[in-house]
Amino acid sequence: MRTRNPPLAREHPIRMTSSRANPQPAAVRPSATEAARPSGLLTDLYELTMAAGYMQTHFDALATFELFARHLPARRNYLVAAGLEQALEFLESVRFTKKEVDFLRANRIFQKIRPEFFSYLSKFHFTGDVWAVPEGTIVFPGEPLLRVSAPIVEAQIVETYLLATLSYQTMIASKAARVCTAAQGRAVVDFGARRGHGAEASLPAARAAVIGGCAGTSNVLAGMEFGLPIYGTQAHSWVMAHDRESEAFASFLDAFPDNSTLLLDTYDVRQALTQILAMGRKPSGVRLDSGDVAKDSRWVRRELDRAGWQDVKIFASGDLDEYRIRELLSRHAAIDAFGVGTALATPGDAPHLNMIYKLVEVERDGRIWEAAKLTRAKATYPGRKQVFRHSKSDGEFRFDRIVLESEPAQGGKPLLVPVMCGGKRVANSGTIAEARERCAAGLAHLPKACRQVSQSAVYPVRYSKALKTMLADVRERVRRSALK
Amino acid sequence: MRTRNPPLAREHPIRMTSSRANPQPAAVRPSATEAARPSGLLTDLYELTMAAGYMQTHFDALATFELFARHLPARRNYLVAAGLEQALEFLESVRFTKKEVDFLRANRIFQKIRPEFFSYLSKFHFTGDVWAVPEGTIVFPGEPLLRVSAPIVEAQIVETYLLATLSYQTMIASKAARVCTAAQGRAVVDFGARRGHGAEASLPAARAAVIGGCAGTSNVLAGMEFGLPIYGTQAHSWVMAHDRESEAFASFLDAFPDNSTLLLDTYDVRQALTQILAMGRKPSGVRLDSGDVAKDSRWVRRELDRAGWQDVKIFASGDLDEYRIRELLSRHAAIDAFGVGTALATPGDAPHLNMIYKLVEVERDGRIWEAAKLTRAKATYPGRKQVFRHSKSDGEFRFDRIVLESEPAQGGKPLLVPVMCGGKRVANSGTIAEARERCAAGLAHLPKACRQVSQSAVYPVRYSKALKTMLADVRERVRRSALK
Repeated sequence: MRTRNPPLAREHPIRMTSSRANPQPAAVRPSATEAARPSGLLTDLYELTMAAGYMQTHFDALATFELFARHLPARRNYLVAAGLEQALEFLESVRFTKKEVDFLRANRIFQKIRPEFFSYLSKFHFTGDVWAVPEGTIVFPGEPLLRVSAPIVEAQIVETYLLATLSYQTMIASKAARVCTAAQGRAVVDFGARRGHGAEASLPAARAAVIGGCAGTSNVLAGMEFGLPIYGTQAHSWVMAHDRESEAFASFLDAFPDNSTLLLDTYDVRQALTQILAMGRKPSGVRLDSGDVAKDSRWVRRELDRAGWQDVKIFASGDLDEYRIRELLSRHAAIDAFGVGTALATPGDAPHLNMIYKLVEVERDGRIWEAAKLTRAKATYPGRKQVFRHSKSDGEFRFDRIVLESEPAQGGKPLLVPVMCGGKRVANSGTIAEARERCAAGLAHLPKACRQVSQSAVYPVRYSKALKTMLADVRERVRRSALK
Repeated sequence: MRTRNPPLAREHPIRMTSSRANPQPAAVRPSATEAARPSGLLTDLYELTMAAGYMQTHFDALATFELFARHLPARRNYLVAAGLEQALEFLESVRFTKKEVDFLRANRIFQKIRPEFFSYLSKFHFTGDVWAVPEGTIVFPGEPLLRVSAPIVEAQIVETYLLATLSYQTMIASKAARVCTAAQGRAVVDFGARRGHGAEASLPAARAAVIGGCAGTSNVLAGMEFGLPIYGTQAHSWVMAHDRESEAFASFLDAFPDNSTLLLDTYDVRQALTQILAMGRKPSGVRLDSGDVAKDSRWVRRELDRAGWQDVKIFASGDLDEYRIRELLSRHAAIDAFGVGTALATPGDAPHLNMIYKLVEVERDGRIWEAAKLTRAKATYPGRKQVFRHSKSDGEFRFDRIVLESEPAQGGKPLLVPVMCGGKRVANSGTIAEARERCAAGLAHLPKACRQVSQSAVYPVRYSKALKTMLADVRERVRRSALK
């Protein structure tokens, strides 16, 4: 336990929220847009029982939580941070409607809670400060993607949404980076819409896939909402719906003379291409979705070239992922671009990241103390942290150091930057294109072993001595307090 | 190719949509609720290019598509159908806003498409007929969960959303059924909100988890929207935020004297329980979230009983799934209820179902022909299907038969029922409680080997001779047409 060191506030010129002694947000809320605002009820019940408990027991505190991955899933050497934009939109706009507050009030569990809690919720808005790593940044276990300092009630209520949002997009962006690495510069398009956890989940996924390196998406609404390039022409059903395959191809070329990728594998790839060549009408591309794609693609390329159609692209899809793409290219598949659906939307080799949101500091009645979970195998480091990335002169990353925010820098580049102050954004969080470039630059600077798709490599991440000392101090404090 | 057999329409008294020759829906749309309607753009681009292609080439047809799982993931003996309610809500309300239509019109790929297509979209609504298996029904590969008959343009546009919705909820309900089976009658609560693919994805997941057998969810908004029981009290952060663990417990009991499950493993389980017993204030439950839960739970039970607190429940959570629960119970863990998060929200052992939506029949210019995909290893059966479930006299399922809708019944119970006619619902799709009971009854009637969590067993599903003959006919027709 210690008191805050005043110089810190100057070093990182982000004001602490001034409302912590009395966490009452401004009463004004625009009712017109209320329906579009995310609901404060989109959270685990325990966030709201704890919130009620803090208010009921007059526990006024400013809490700092950090959100990070405890460890990497197997087959991952790094993560690509994504989802910050949606996390900040949530923090800016989360509210409780009257109906939602009434729903809680009527629940048996809240029956002894004083009315002040419910009137607090009806005026709730987030007033905290947030630091975060920009989207597209390469991150490693233990490194906070996000750090929230806010009245403890607020910081608690937003936990569930922040975890889901950042874990999901980070998982997808990280997978996309691997898939695009395997494609060696060929375009990869997100085909994951139908594999989303509900179709709506495919929208942030398309965004994250593009941050991770994808060229675009088949998802039309994602294209409109996020300004992403959209791709797609025909499915097997188009061919199946027509009497004859040749008629199906001819009709599609009639409708889309300048932009038609014809699907070859509804019945038989070679028969399909032979019919297209016999028609003599050049499509912009052809697609292979099943079968021996490496072999078929080489045959298709030869036949296309023989017809003088060197500019007709070959597109491959069908249960592709980074391993399958690497195998196809190692077999000299003649493929210009890949469509990846299932593996991007629900990465089977790492279907969840299990990020955590841990309390690291509490400020109450003018005192500050650091918090840590101490259970075996699940211990976490206390204290507000910063991450410094140290690089070689050519830009290659050497190692990261996780330090207390208050420690003097020892070189390296700080990863966490202020993004929100008193519940308002303090910086534009940047475009998807910028995040995509950041990711590409980060991948280019990763040690080569870490960048590999089928090789495990551990990037060095160190904790400062001050952090280790602080963890030991918390352990000792808890031990002593239990004995009292 | 054949003409429709008139008696069929009598056998299944669902009118075909009358608008197939001119797929123009009614012009009236309620603009007030427009914002809340799902967007027709939430689909893959190729659905819209095909739609444009069909209109551009005057291909007026009534198409029938069937949605089913091609095969089971490893470690699954059955699936629990779920998501129909959301699928039907989508079909009833999907629209294109002016902004969305303009977005498409401005896209280069549509530049040669006639204006009629865009005015069609601006008045789009779904006018088709839908048959489906009720939610909570046990289903197997090849068995259609949903069958859509509609103008081909409509049937195509809704594909992506239907696949995502039914695949996702079916995946979660199927996992929940396994987890609840392993819990042997103990309550299982969905803790998956923070592991959702975005927080919003956790809402249908909570619903599906309850259909599969869960007692409720930690997800408050899901509780309100779907009327599900909600659960939750305190997290590690509550304990960590307080100076002393005993103070944290006492404060929580102050706020929630009748309903407080205290979390024991923030620092040390035995130390925590010792402090609670020393306080002498009885909580309603305690929770273990890490460590040797089997051993700790037996110790906690003994200590609670020794204090005369036989009615204090022990709740377990922390990376649980059906395998871990089975192991805990085999080690005589003293656990009354389980919280399962990650495994329910993103089942690591089967993170996707890869359902497909396949064209099986086309009716055009008064002719009907059956469609099938013929590629090696990905062939599908043509024709409109029904599934009959045959049971023993005690109710145990013996086998399923997939037949053409037009085949005479040979006993058994038909699984597909009409749910939508001409774009309007023809029956209430039932409550979540009914779907949950249907699932429980289905599980009780499954052959015992299929119900096991750690045993592979194949339930017999047969295809009728007529279906096999029809597939051979389609194959021959395609072969001949390619030779012409």
